[in-house]
Formats: sequence, C-alpha cells, structure tokens
Amino acid sequence: MNEIELIAQLTKSLPTNAWVITGAGDDCAVLDSGQPNRCLLLKTDAVVEGIHFLPETQAEQIGHKALARCLSDIAAMAGRPIAALVTIALPKKFDPDFVKKIYDGMSQLAERHGVAIVGGETTTNPERMLISISLLGDVAKDKCLLRSGAKASDAIFVTGELGGSLAAKHLEFEPRLSEARWLADHFSVHAMIDLSDGLASDLRHILHQSKTGAEIFSKSIPISRAAKLRARAESSAKPPLLAALSDGEDFELLFTVSSRDAVPLLDAWKKQFPKLKLSCIGKITAAPGLKLRDENGVRILQSHGYVHFA
Amino acid sequence: MNEIELIAQLTKSLPTNAWVITGAGDDCAVLDSGQPNRCLLLKTDAVVEGIHFLPETQAEQIGHKALARCLSDIAAMAGRPIAALVTIALPKKFDPDFVKKIYDGMSQLAERHGVAIVGGETTTNPERMLISISLLGDVAKDKCLLRSGAKASDAIFVTGELGGSLAAKHLEFEPRLSEARWLADHFSVHAMIDLSDGLASDLRHILHQSKTGAEIFSKSIPISRAAKLRARAESSAKPPLLAALSDGEDFELLFTVSSRDAVPLLDAWKKQFPKLKLSCIGKITAAPGLKLRDENGVRILQSHGYVHFA
Repeated sequence: MNEIELIAQLTKSLPTNAWVITGAGDDCAVLDSGQPNRCLLLKTDAVVEGIHFLPETQAEQIGHKALARCLSDIAAMAGRPIAALVTIALPKKFDPDFVKKIYDGMSQLAERHGVAIVGGETTTNPERMLISISLLGDVAKDKCLLRSGAKASDAIFVTGELGGSLAAKHLEFEPRLSEARWLADHFSVHAMIDLSDGLASDLRHILHQSKTGAEIFSKSIPISRAAKLRARAESSAKPPLLAALSDGEDFELLFTVSSRDAVPLLDAWKKQFPKLKLSCIGKITAAPGLKLRDENGVRILQSHGYVHFA
Repeated sequence: MNEIELIAQLTKSLPTNAWVITGAGDDCAVLDSGQPNRCLLLKTDAVVEGIHFLPETQAEQIGHKALARCLSDIAAMAGRPIAALVTIALPKKFDPDFVKKIYDGMSQLAERHGVAIVGGETTTNPERMLISISLLGDVAKDKCLLRSGAKASDAIFVTGELGGSLAAKHLEFEPRLSEARWLADHFSVHAMIDLSDGLASDLRHILHQSKTGAEIFSKSIPISRAAKLRARAESSAKPPLLAALSDGEDFELLFTVSSRDAVPLLDAWKKQFPKLKLSCIGKITAAPGLKLRDENGVRILQSHGYVHFA
C-alpha cells in the first residue's frame, strides 16, 4: 500500500462536527470561526532530515522551509496566516546553536508574513531531526479557494517557473501569500492548489476534486532555468519538460479562472507582479483525464506526475 | 543544555502579533478569536516510539494516548476541543492495519469528546514511528485558566491519584475535559495545569508563573495503587510518595482556588464526580519555594520533581 492509498483509507471515516466546513483532502482544513464572514484554516506539515533536508543543509534554511511549506498551503486557500506551533524532534546529541538558527530562519519568515510563533515543543527522535509545524490562518468566507471549483473550459494558470527545485529553490522559496490574496480579491478564481508534488500530480488533485479533465500545452509550461541546466549537465537527468511536469516542491500557485478572465488577468498581473511570471498552460475539459498537447498531437499523461511517452 | 534551558532560549524572542493573548509557556497558546467573548486555543504534542510508547504497545492505545495528551492540555485551560490534525511519520515498512488501528483509537476518543479530525499527513521517519497532533479549541474569555493566577493562601487541589502511570494509565487515561469545564463554570479557579511532568515539576510551573511558593502536605498527596504496588514489588522502585511527587504522565488536573472555596468545592465535587477523587494537597505561600510538610516538619523540595531528603 502506498502513501496515497493509505491516506485514502485513513481519511474515509474520520470523526467530524458542526465546525468543519472542509476536512481532510484540501490544502488546509476549513472551519467555522463563529463569525459570519470568516473561516479558520488549519494546516500541519513536517520536514524530516535526510528526506526534506540534508544533514549539511544550513539551519536557517531548514527553519525557513519547514514554515514556508505550511504558509504555501495557506496561500493555496487565499488565506492569511495567523499563528504557528513548532515541534522539533531532536537526536540525543544536538547543537543548541544549530536549533537556535533553525528558529531564526523560521522567525524571519514569520515576521515577513505577520505570523506569530506561539509555542510548540521539543521532543526526542534519536536518529534524525524532524520538524512538524502547525499553522492557524483565516480567510473571508467568500474568498476561500478550494481544489474542487474548476469548471470545463476554465483557463489553467501557474505562477513562476517549474522543475529543478531541489537545486536550491525548495530551501529558499517565498510562499505566494500576497499573490494568492490579490488573485482572490481581484478575480473569480475557481480552484487553486500549491505545487508540492509536481504540476501533473497537483493538477490531478484539482481535476479529481472538480470532476473534470484538462489539456495542457507543452509549449506553455514554464520550465525553470535549474531544470534546463540540470538536463544539460547530467545525461541521466529528466528532460526539462518532464522535470517541470513531475518535480516536486515548486511551491507555485496552480489555479483556474473562467476563460474570459484569462487576458484581463494576464494584463493586471503584469502590472501588479512585474517580476513574477504567470503562464496560461491549458484548459479544463469536461472529459476526464489529463492530456498534454505538443507539436505532434495529444498524449495522455499517466500516473504520479510522470509522462509515459508511448 | 537540557530541554528546559533550550526551550527558554528558543521562546525568548518569538515573533508575535495582535492575535496573541498568551504565547509559548502555558498549556495552550491563547489567541483572539475575533469574537468578543471567546478565545481560540492552540496546542501541539508528539509521541515517539521507544519513548512515549513501545513497539509492542497496542495500536489503538498509541492513537488514544497521542490525542489524549493534547486534549489534556485543552482541559488545563478549561477549554473545549474543536478539531485535530494528525501527522504520522512512519518507517519505510509499515503495516497499514496497524496504522488504521492507531486512527481507530484516536477516532474513538475524538468522538467521545466531540472533536473532529480534519486531516494531517503521513511522512517518513525511517527508524521509528512518530505521531504529532495539533489541536484547535476554544474557551470563554472569562473562563480561560492560566498557570499564572495562583495567589498566596490559595488551596491547592489535585484530581485522581498520582504516580506509577507507566504501569498502564499513560496509555488509557481519559482527559479531564468535563471536570475542568465544570470547575471553571462553578468556582473561581485561579490557576490550573495538567500533570504531565510530575506533581512537583508541574506545581513549580504554576509557582514560577504566579510568582508564589507552596507548602504541600505529604499525608494529603493521593498516591496511586500502581505506585504502591510497584514499590512493594521492586526494592529498587521509588518509594510511593516520591513516585506520586515525581512520576510523569498522570494527566490529572492541578489547580488552586481561594481557601474559602475549598470546602464548598469538595462538597460539590463529591456530588458531581462521585467516582473521581479530589484532594486538597496544600496551600500557596507568598514566600517562594516548594516545601513538603510531614510528621517530622517541613523540608524543601528541590529540582525536577525529586525530593532530596537531607
């Protein structure tokens, strides 16, 4: 049983109550705040030494990444982050200065986005460091963006450039909080997700929850310089397009808007965020499935983000 | 540097914002809810294989304990739990049925207390299982009980019986949520904490944050049957009184009320919770320090919960 199958099993019949608007299965849980026009958002995420960072990763970058991943999920709901709790599980022998620098990295990012760090705990994990962060946020009820709202003929957009995040970006990215709130405030965004598993995988989450399909255009997919450099440097590396489709940890925003909003959005975006690329990469289709169109025609994209060329 | 010193270092200058009423340092963080009369509570806690449970511990008990520890902290604020997020870090080879049973144990406890489980994540921790839970709760603004409110001459109370929790109770305890809310609704409780580190340690947290001292009476400390049995069975085990003072994971409530409320409280408690012992174990003093009175006089209790008999 893989992780996705396990999660599907575990989340099938979880206890719920009157507070829950959206439980497991979106970027954040959405809860009634007791106020008429706002919802609470709740998210947790963990990074593990040897998996999400290496023993030689700089401490500040570990702290930054641990919090930034959670913030990216709040961004995916067009939310505002409020407060974080930090659990650090440490090997028996740890360097207090290293741990302090992890907190410095987290605190700097938190301060930039107005997030309070309100506690947490330290515990022991003898073999490796593990950091689990939980984050409370909120969002206006009518602005909260789920994965489930995409509609046939919607235009699909993605921010930034994709692929090759492991070279550096996964430790340094700035979560797209202000971009996401600007989108929700100025356009009718139908569905949004942050890219953590890779474009193809994360788009599939939108398609699955919106009960739609999509066709994306290979020429329009913004490929990062890191993915291109890597393909050139290593003959065994993924071709750049494949990296952009399947590499994880891009932490960009993937969203859909009505096709008639596509051009006004691109125009307004250029004025608002002149330094951040926004690409229209395809359209939502009523027919299920994820298809890739290139100069040779249309192919089906299969399974966890990887393209199986026939 | 030990854990307590490290936490003191790390929490000295954390980022804060206008939402924060009480940050790191109490049982839960307390946040503005945007409503005039309620606060939000936020808590996270982790259990680690080999430390908080053993490889042979029953799966349902692991799930129960992981959630119950967090619920006990919500109880310590007289709060109401709302929603939990669950992070399970699993070794590469795991038994899906075992994980499912962990969720069953959590879900059963969650349902008894009206808590929703609204998601979380699974990740990898190659050498051992680790479960981190975060919990959102709320509480009426005028009923929220901090550690910092104890006043000189207050009577000190503790629920249940203490010591020897490792024999079984730490895997089975029911968090004192309804008892805590009843206390806050019917009496003017000045300070409260749940017992996780041991009576002497946790009472010290109240004393430290309330800037007071205390004198407790050895004869009044409720010693559990498990602590007595263990002392009888093993000559190397702690004497029962020492176990009650210093064993961790009792998860009972420790609180103070004005001395004039002590007798009315004991009377009302007996009617409300006839099966659960409530003991008045001493009094808060203006003079700092924690003292133990027995038939031979008064001694000072030193350092992390352990009595150093002179």
